[in-house]
Amino acid sequence: MITRTIPLYEDRQDVTLTAYILADSAELLNGRKRPAVLICPGGAYLSCSDREGEPVALRFAAMGYHAFVLRYSTYYRGKPAQFPPPANLEVNPNSVHPGPIRDIGKAFLTIHAHADEWLLDTDRIAICGFSAGAHNCANYAVHWHSPVICEFFGAAPAMFKPAAVVLGYGISNYHLMFGETTDPLAQSLADAARVAFLGTKTPTKELLDAVSPALHVSENTPPTFLWATAADQLVPVENTTRMANALAQAGIPFEAHIFERGPHGLSLADQASAGSLFEIDADAAQWIGLADAWLKKHLALTLPERPAWQMALLAQ
Amino acid sequence: MITRTIPLYEDRQDVTLTAYILADSAELLNGRKRPAVLICPGGAYLSCSDREGEPVALRFAAMGYHAFVLRYSTYYRGKPAQFPPPANLEVNPNSVHPGPIRDIGKAFLTIHAHADEWLLDTDRIAICGFSAGAHNCANYAVHWHSPVICEFFGAAPAMFKPAAVVLGYGISNYHLMFGETTDPLAQSLADAARVAFLGTKTPTKELLDAVSPALHVSENTPPTFLWATAADQLVPVENTTRMANALAQAGIPFEAHIFERGPHGLSLADQASAGSLFEIDADAAQWIGLADAWLKKHLALTLPERPAWQMALLAQ
Repeated sequence: MITRTIPLYEDRQDVTLTAYILADSAELLNGRKRPAVLICPGGAYLSCSDREGEPVALRFAAMGYHAFVLRYSTYYRGKPAQFPPPANLEVNPNSVHPGPIRDIGKAFLTIHAHADEWLLDTDRIAICGFSAGAHNCANYAVHWHSPVICEFFGAAPAMFKPAAVVLGYGISNYHLMFGETTDPLAQSLADAARVAFLGTKTPTKELLDAVSPALHVSENTPPTFLWATAADQLVPVENTTRMANALAQAGIPFEAHIFERGPHGLSLADQASAGSLFEIDADAAQWIGLADAWLKKHLALTLPERPAWQMALLAQ
Repeated sequence: MITRTIPLYEDRQDVTLTAYILADSAELLNGRKRPAVLICPGGAYLSCSDREGEPVALRFAAMGYHAFVLRYSTYYRGKPAQFPPPANLEVNPNSVHPGPIRDIGKAFLTIHAHADEWLLDTDRIAICGFSAGAHNCANYAVHWHSPVICEFFGAAPAMFKPAAVVLGYGISNYHLMFGETTDPLAQSLADAARVAFLGTKTPTKELLDAVSPALHVSENTPPTFLWATAADQLVPVENTTRMANALAQAGIPFEAHIFERGPHGLSLADQASAGSLFEIDADAAQWIGLADAWLKKHLALTLPERPAWQMALLAQ
């Protein structure tokens, strides 16, 4: 495996693509190209969580896919978020929509540019996100073919097409987020998250519609795998059920797994992605095995029937 | 993740330790040391199979363990084995017992030397092997505390102690191997494997006893996980049942999973480790999930009850 972190913009260090490129072998794909999974960690567009980065990338790499962690534009520019956030936040234009989906577009261009060197099959790049990262992936999944991406980069839609989408406890409808609260900490977090991605504490209905992927699913939306916990106290599970409903209505192949219990932000729900026992849940941890099986419906490696040594024996 | 390949001997390039060192984060172990798994691929002591190297290391890394692939001394000195092997093979003294278990000892010393740099918990290093690599691990597991390792390196037994052992379709009793055959190809492979590890095509009973780990299990043998397929045509499954019996008799904690079907050499039995569909078996592929659960009984990461942000809130 080769690991390498690539800054996506010459004049900024905060947006990076970390590549986990599997070694090939005559015993494995023998020079054929592999599919890949690009991961967007969550963090309310304030920061990118390490718990939803490398541990997840390694799990996909262990399925036989090249993996990437994209640290897209966030309010705190790649630094940890201030907690609790200060009251008066100035807008960071990079983290406001459509900045973060353009970062995914830029990542696709970068991956395409290295496809031969990395033996990577550009027709089979999946994207996987968690929480705000899942929102970023869903938002990209409904806009990858649109002028906001293609005209902005001056490249054909084929350069940006994701083959499949995996969304963990994601936001699909911004109207469901950040309800009324009397808790000052919750209010300051909601305000910070709104400023980070919407550029304002008081977004219009039109803006909330525009950034709600469940309202924009079309025949161009790729096959999608959704998972969440019904008990999520931060991102209401209706974000997942409404996205499932929108995919069903549009006839997009999808799979959805909603576990009854478990807090927001479980990542793999296993020790590999946990900072504490609170972030482990053996039940919800089944999602990655289900996602493995589902991804094989869309990204499975192309393998011959028999190994080379059997073919050599048969040829004798 | 940092990946790095370290030659274990200054004057030889064929024995290497490839390290897959997980990145730490304040959100993950926050500076605490991690357990590790050292992997020995199989290959009849003629070569080391890539299918049983990196794909397996990444699966253990995805469980939250640092991982290592040890390419130990083999007859073809790190090069692919000649197939079919030539009739007259000269002995390679490096690949003959006890060379390969000493390579594991040398790997332990190397890992210990880097433990602080890698944030690695030297009290919790598991070893995992497949086929001949499983034999090498089992042979080490019964000899790590013996003069053949400790006196040879002039170091205390504590430097060499494995915390747990995972053996896939391994050889535990050399008397069960390489029965009479009239097939010239099978005979030439058996002869080559004997010359590679035993230094002779005609080993004595004493030599076969000496290199049969199932005959040397003691109270110093670490907890062990065994898996195999009953249908294995190359390494008879009695190698696994006899090892299980020896562990049971010695009162060593162990777990064993024998799947009814599946050929020799399945590795992960999944696309990640397969060169062809022949090497995929959804049933046998369950072994790695079972091994994950079992390893947690012995190597589980030490995690606090609650994440830091909850503790900060509670302290307010």
